Amino acid sequence: MEFVTALVFIFIACACGIAWAIFNWMAVHKIEIHHKHEGLNEKLQGDQQEKIETLLEIGEHITDGAKAFLKEEYTDCSVFIAIMAVALIFVSPWSTLAFVLGAATSMLCGYLGMAIATAANYRTAFCAITSLSDAFQMAYRGGCVMGFLLVSISLSILSLIIIIYNSVLVKDNNQEDLISMFDYVAAYGLGGSTFALFGRVGGGIYTKAADVGADLVGKVEKNLPEDSPKNPATIADNVGDNVGDIAGMGADLFGSFAESTCAALVVSSTQLRVITEQGPIIHIGQLMYPLMVSAFGIIICIAVSGYAVFIQKVTHINKIESSLKLQLLLSTLALSPILVGIAYWCLPSDFVMISATFEIEIGSLQPWHALVCSLMGLWSGLLIGYFTEYMTSHSYTPVREVAKACGTGAATNIIYGLALGYLSTIVPIVAIALTALLSMKLLSFYGVALAALGMLSNLTIGLAIDAYGPISDNAGGIAEMSELGEDVRTSTDALDAAGNTTAAIGKGFAIGSAALVSLSLYGGYLTRIQTYNKNGVYPYAEGAKIDDPIIFAMLLIGAMLPYAFSAFTMKSVGKAALQMVEEVRRQLHEHPGIYAGTEEPDFRACIAISTKASLKEMIPPGLLVIVTPTAVGLLFGPQAVAGLLPGALISGVQMAISASNTGGAWDNAKKYIEAGFYKNDLGEVKKKGSDEHKAAVIGDTVGDPLKDTSGPSLNILIKLMAILSLVLAETFCKTGWLYKD
Amino acid sequence: MEFVTALVFIFIACACGIAWAIFNWMAVHKIEIHHKHEGLNEKLQGDQQEKIETLLEIGEHITDGAKAFLKEEYTDCSVFIAIMAVALIFVSPWSTLAFVLGAATSMLCGYLGMAIATAANYRTAFCAITSLSDAFQMAYRGGCVMGFLLVSISLSILSLIIIIYNSVLVKDNNQEDLISMFDYVAAYGLGGSTFALFGRVGGGIYTKAADVGADLVGKVEKNLPEDSPKNPATIADNVGDNVGDIAGMGADLFGSFAESTCAALVVSSTQLRVITEQGPIIHIGQLMYPLMVSAFGIIICIAVSGYAVFIQKVTHINKIESSLKLQLLLSTLALSPILVGIAYWCLPSDFVMISATFEIEIGSLQPWHALVCSLMGLWSGLLIGYFTEYMTSHSYTPVREVAKACGTGAATNIIYGLALGYLSTIVPIVAIALTALLSMKLLSFYGVALAALGMLSNLTIGLAIDAYGPISDNAGGIAEMSELGEDVRTSTDALDAAGNTTAAIGKGFAIGSAALVSLSLYGGYLTRIQTYNKNGVYPYAEGAKIDDPIIFAMLLIGAMLPYAFSAFTMKSVGKAALQMVEEVRRQLHEHPGIYAGTEEPDFRACIAISTKASLKEMIPPGLLVIVTPTAVGLLFGPQAVAGLLPGALISGVQMAISASNTGGAWDNAKKYIEAGFYKNDLGEVKKKGSDEHKAAVIGDTVGDPLKDTSGPSLNILIKLMAILSLVLAETFCKTGWLYKD
Repeated sequence: MEFVTALVFIFIACACGIAWAIFNWMAVHKIEIHHKHEGLNEKLQGDQQEKIETLLEIGEHITDGAKAFLKEEYTDCSVFIAIMAVALIFVSPWSTLAFVLGAATSMLCGYLGMAIATAANYRTAFCAITSLSDAFQMAYRGGCVMGFLLVSISLSILSLIIIIYNSVLVKDNNQEDLISMFDYVAAYGLGGSTFALFGRVGGGIYTKAADVGADLVGKVEKNLPEDSPKNPATIADNVGDNVGDIAGMGADLFGSFAESTCAALVVSSTQLRVITEQGPIIHIGQLMYPLMVSAFGIIICIAVSGYAVFIQKVTHINKIESSLKLQLLLSTLALSPILVGIAYWCLPSDFVMISATFEIEIGSLQPWHALVCSLMGLWSGLLIGYFTEYMTSHSYTPVREVAKACGTGAATNIIYGLALGYLSTIVPIVAIALTALLSMKLLSFYGVALAALGMLSNLTIGLAIDAYGPISDNAGGIAEMSELGEDVRTSTDALDAAGNTTAAIGKGFAIGSAALVSLSLYGGYLTRIQTYNKNGVYPYAEGAKIDDPIIFAMLLIGAMLPYAFSAFTMKSVGKAALQMVEEVRRQLHEHPGIYAGTEEPDFRACIAISTKASLKEMIPPGLLVIVTPTAVGLLFGPQAVAGLLPGALISGVQMAISASNTGGAWDNAKKYIEAGFYKNDLGEVKKKGSDEHKAAVIGDTVGDPLKDTSGPSLNILIKLMAILSLVLAETFCKTGWLYKD
Repeated sequence: MEFVTALVFIFIACACGIAWAIFNWMAVHKIEIHHKHEGLNEKLQGDQQEKIETLLEIGEHITDGAKAFLKEEYTDCSVFIAIMAVALIFVSPWSTLAFVLGAATSMLCGYLGMAIATAANYRTAFCAITSLSDAFQMAYRGGCVMGFLLVSISLSILSLIIIIYNSVLVKDNNQEDLISMFDYVAAYGLGGSTFALFGRVGGGIYTKAADVGADLVGKVEKNLPEDSPKNPATIADNVGDNVGDIAGMGADLFGSFAESTCAALVVSSTQLRVITEQGPIIHIGQLMYPLMVSAFGIIICIAVSGYAVFIQKVTHINKIESSLKLQLLLSTLALSPILVGIAYWCLPSDFVMISATFEIEIGSLQPWHALVCSLMGLWSGLLIGYFTEYMTSHSYTPVREVAKACGTGAATNIIYGLALGYLSTIVPIVAIALTALLSMKLLSFYGVALAALGMLSNLTIGLAIDAYGPISDNAGGIAEMSELGEDVRTSTDALDAAGNTTAAIGKGFAIGSAALVSLSLYGGYLTRIQTYNKNGVYPYAEGAKIDDPIIFAMLLIGAMLPYAFSAFTMKSVGKAALQMVEEVRRQLHEHPGIYAGTEEPDFRACIAISTKASLKEMIPPGLLVIVTPTAVGLLFGPQAVAGLLPGALISGVQMAISASNTGGAWDNAKKYIEAGFYKNDLGEVKKKGSDEHKAAVIGDTVGDPLKDTSGPSLNILIKLMAILSLVLAETFCKTGWLYKD
């Protein structure tokens, strides 16, 4: 396939994606909210005008809080991004440009996601008054805007960078220019990932400090229901969902997407060749194959999400979860034959991979080699998603066992929950290991990058059902605070419960893809240091052998990093939550009118605490991720980093999976009890307020930082360390002052 | 040094160790317990005769329970050991013999340890009535019996095996006979470790099922104090300390000791050579160097423990912890110059290491190379021990922060405790990594084995202060149950609190040494498969490269095993504890006289539940450890195992450290509150019965299985998988049916 043809298709797909997002954006905003809306009379008790006004007001508070936080976060991060951008000039000004564009894209997508989520959340609550189906559509459309905008914008900007760099930097299709050009392009991924670090960690600390703080005083001490308008931390908790679970998660997955594409480009430009009469050459059209996979992913996902928006009607709360799961299944099924088509259309019928020494390493490759890798990724993503659902939904045995353990108190609940998380690593790890094994066998690290992109090919749908979660969660909170009544709350609770499960699925995807992305970046790193060896700069020959002393020592230290990182982030949440607790206690103590319902709590003070604490607390874990590989590389050389990265990868992925699933399971065990499904040995139903429920709340509170702060942030740890090392590979080869082989 | 000279010294040292153990054994048994004992009158209120009779009776119950459990455990394990012994005949009958002897030694040492601990515990309680100093001596002497018996017996049996195999199997000092002989000797370590697996896991489940069950009903539901005679599970809890923390821990450390010695022997016989006129030869006297380190360790430790027994007087409860820590410091200080002497005495002034291809890999080695490795091990052991104390003792900030977090409830306590555990990996991991790096650099994997032996050179003292813990813990329980009064309980509580810290230190040692042992065994494994490659059996050439697909995939799966294993063991404890809870509830419900104090609870029913549950539940985790490397090796070949082992090692060691320290910290945070040190923000002291204390009890209960079941069992996982693979290395090279490179 020609370079130009590929680009035309990619831009058409991106345009379609953006158009579809705008269409949904407009559909969301079309809903007019006023108290004279049709059907409202029958459904809403009490003073309708006041309730609707409260709803609008709360929606505004949340939007303002989220905007204010993102503004401060972006300002702080910009300083750091600027410093790194300047440092990167020493690598190349072109790297700096791509880096800044990557960070800016990530910020833009996060902001747009937050904007649509805060617009959709109170509209979802409003729709839930009259129709469950409309409310579901509202939340899902909000998710679609986020998903399609993010993928389409980032794919088009990346393509644009490639076009510009290709026309400016590559003279007469010069092969070496092409290789180094993609080195510069890779900084796009680094930019995205660097911002994602702070977005994920800062947003994660924000949301959980507010959530844990609100729960500790509200639910445990004062017996207030979740999202009670009497709890001063409630608005901060809802803001947190938007900045953590929407903006932070979007930045994370944008990072995965950008990095896996960059990894594929770097590895393929270095290693993929077509044999011609002039010898083996780089075929730039062929290099566009990974981008084509993403482009077609957008098109297919438009069709699949159109089915949810136009055809399917969610008429009963039992159908919510299955509708969302169906989206995932449909997109996977539809993409499978498409991937076959793209492979045979884009790739030459015969190509080779060369080694760092320019000898043919793997000869006579056909499109099916690449195809198998992407299909392995696509389907193992679905497997991980469905297995995650099994482990974290209260429709199945594992979570029910955890709920049962609440019968003997919080301690057994925690023991069972931890065990569930540990156990839940088995299937995803085997899936990732098999995918890695097969794709490395077929196409070395290029295969791994393709597997990652295969897993991310239905990313738009993944993001949509993931962002659907916090939107419904917020809708529930807003319904509670505006006192829209029991019926509305039942609808939004059901929407939210399904959202918990899809959030867990989303995390499974994010972790699985992060592992593969990180591995392919590691491959890129090894290829780079081998190339320098070939040029005689660094005497690297034997490869990354485990029995090499520095490699083993660094494997061990790398495996320790996720523990240190989690310790930092968990303690940050704990500290920030304690501050929040004190503020809430102070307000309730000094203003008894708040608890009586006659006085409005000071929401802004709580928002300020979360904002300040998260911006301050994200610095130590952030530095750990950035400083460690850099310092190790500079001091101990490229071999040390070649041990550090896989150590962090293989240990971090386990911790991330177990933390996310433990937290998800505790949350849903609590929901299981709240929904009245739990019976003790004597057959009595135990609901809110029982000892069993209190034990479940403790588990949920412990799970909050695990599943929403430390767990997902580990994705960034393993990806960012890898791409940073890739960009700095040459520098490491020239330094390594303290250690010589 | 000549072979015979070395053996004479080793046997003299072992004889001294055994004599010292017997001397202390007799000193323990010399105490006569009767109610007319001098000074008893003033100290003991109420009916003295009845109290002393109760004390003797409870002591008997505990002894009977422990003996009954060990008998059943040994019977069950013997079946498994017999099956593995038969399977090993296919490797070699000599391996079978060494394997059986290793398992038998482990059983014997565990049994003897249990015997002295159950004799010393009620005597400690009795001594505590009149004198703190006597009580401390009693508990410490009990620990010494255990420590010195275990090391001396195992070292002498191992030496005996070497003598016999050398005289039977080695013809005319034939070099190849010597190499294969040590292959057979290595099965001694496998035997010890295989039994240790069941000892640690079974004992760990037993003790924690009883402990957690007793706490859940007694402390949380019924508000009974710890070790209340009204709680039917109390005796089972005390039995558990003897079978888990004494017999199980002894088996674990015997395994480390035997395996590191075997690893040193296997690697050195294959690689260590002295250059003579006839070319490079194996110098069998030189191979005895690792055993000499252990032998001199015994002698030095006799002197050091003699100081505690004869000279030092513990007159105040503040001095208990420092006296125990001093033992560790003194033995480390005293051993340092001795290690220098042994190295220069035992090792030739110049030697070399050869590679699998019989070429010289590292030339002109001097004794100092070996010396540095053992010193690194010795001192990093001390560092790990002291750092563990810092993280888990309530004299320092970390545990106090956790205690403070109890002020906002159980959830923040758990969050802070988990973060503490994660954070506590940093220093030990860096210490282990540096030790591994330096010793591999100096002497390859032989250096690592020497570092492990250096760390274990004061094992006798380590075991003594470790076994001291459960003895004092039991003494406290017995004092409570015999109602010896508040003063006695204060003394035993202080003895026990120090024991908690030394137990944590012991776990730190156990994990550190396990990591090094496992690494040296891995080195032995790699050496073995390289040797087969040399013989053309298996085309293994490139080494264990991380970017080899099967190695990477198996690294990932290996890193998952500790999670799966922990999930099994934690859930086992949870399940068994729930059974215990039901039994205790049943007894208290059906016999109201128990709570009133007029009826004796049925202790035996609780003991039966713990026994049955632990023997059943130890099977799945046990099989996981044994079946996984075997199946991977048979199906995917030796390269796959070369990835699996380091994966499990680098992930397992982190989990083990964080689990042990989290649990230790929660336990001591609870003790900190109980001792009345905790004040809330208003300056009020919060003690037993407060909400803060309840939150702390929940943390302690969660920590129990982490620190005493899953954490320590991970040591066995990483060691046993490595030694099993070493023994089966040749078999793997001939199979690997499913995967070809």
